[in-house]
Amino acid sequence: MAFQSAEEVEAAFYDAFAACDVGAMGRLWIQEDAVCIHPGAVPLLGREAVMRSWEHIFAGAAGPSIKVQAIRRIAGKDLAIHIVEEQIAAPGDPSANAIVLATNVYRCTETGWLMASHQGVLMTGASGTGQTLQ
Amino acid sequence: MAFQSAEEVEAAFYDAFAACDVGAMGRLWIQEDAVCIHPGAVPLLGREAVMRSWEHIFAGAAGPSIKVQAIRRIAGKDLAIHIVEEQIAAPGDPSANAIVLATNVYRCTETGWLMASHQGVLMTGASGTGQTLQ
Repeated sequence: MAFQSAEEVEAAFYDAFAACDVGAMGRLWIQEDAVCIHPGAVPLLGREAVMRSWEHIFAGAAGPSIKVQAIRRIAGKDLAIHIVEEQIAAPGDPSANAIVLATNVYRCTETGWLMASHQGVLMTGASGTGQTLQ
Repeated sequence: MAFQSAEEVEAAFYDAFAACDVGAMGRLWIQEDAVCIHPGAVPLLGREAVMRSWEHIFAGAAGPSIKVQAIRRIAGKDLAIHIVEEQIAAPGDPSANAIVLATNVYRCTETGWLMASHQGVLMTGASGTGQTLQ
């Protein structure tokens, strides 16, 4: 069940996000020293605060459609940083979309790779222009 | 002359930033795969684009005053991620300040530690309230 690579954690993260699945989201975050910075928000430090934020985001929400495009991957021995562009569309309305620039940090632990940090920055809101960062 | 730790690179980065010193800035960036995301801007990929942006920022500028406070440090074997709060004040006017949330990535190379990625997000602009992220 453990994640064998940063790429596996990243796929699970966006699957959990798109499905609004708190249980799946909880299984991929690191136990200690988690950091999550949602667009425009102050940093959330610690697993408890991070998971509370996802529970809040997912509560009553329909799953968005998320397309993820890698901008740069920095791979180390026990850490990996993925800078990605998230194209997030509201369910049933692909024209109402937002582009978020995310920096994801993954760590190799004794129980496999896990997400250590996620930071999202809103680049455009509901523009529908289809413009991307690259 | 090589940097012995991520902390040494970070100190040099903010010294170069505050002094508007292009030469010092150039010595601390990694040769390959550099990434720099200035507040509100699209990602700059590659050392050449990154250094061009700093030359542009520093051209004719007076050095700002920068106070840096660590929010979270994620240390690995050959990569380190520092999430920091930058309190940036215009020279001669400490009340005109901005708070930037920065994610800095450092890599241990054959020639010592170097900056691999810097991302800044503006949290407040010229508020003068002294409010911080923590």
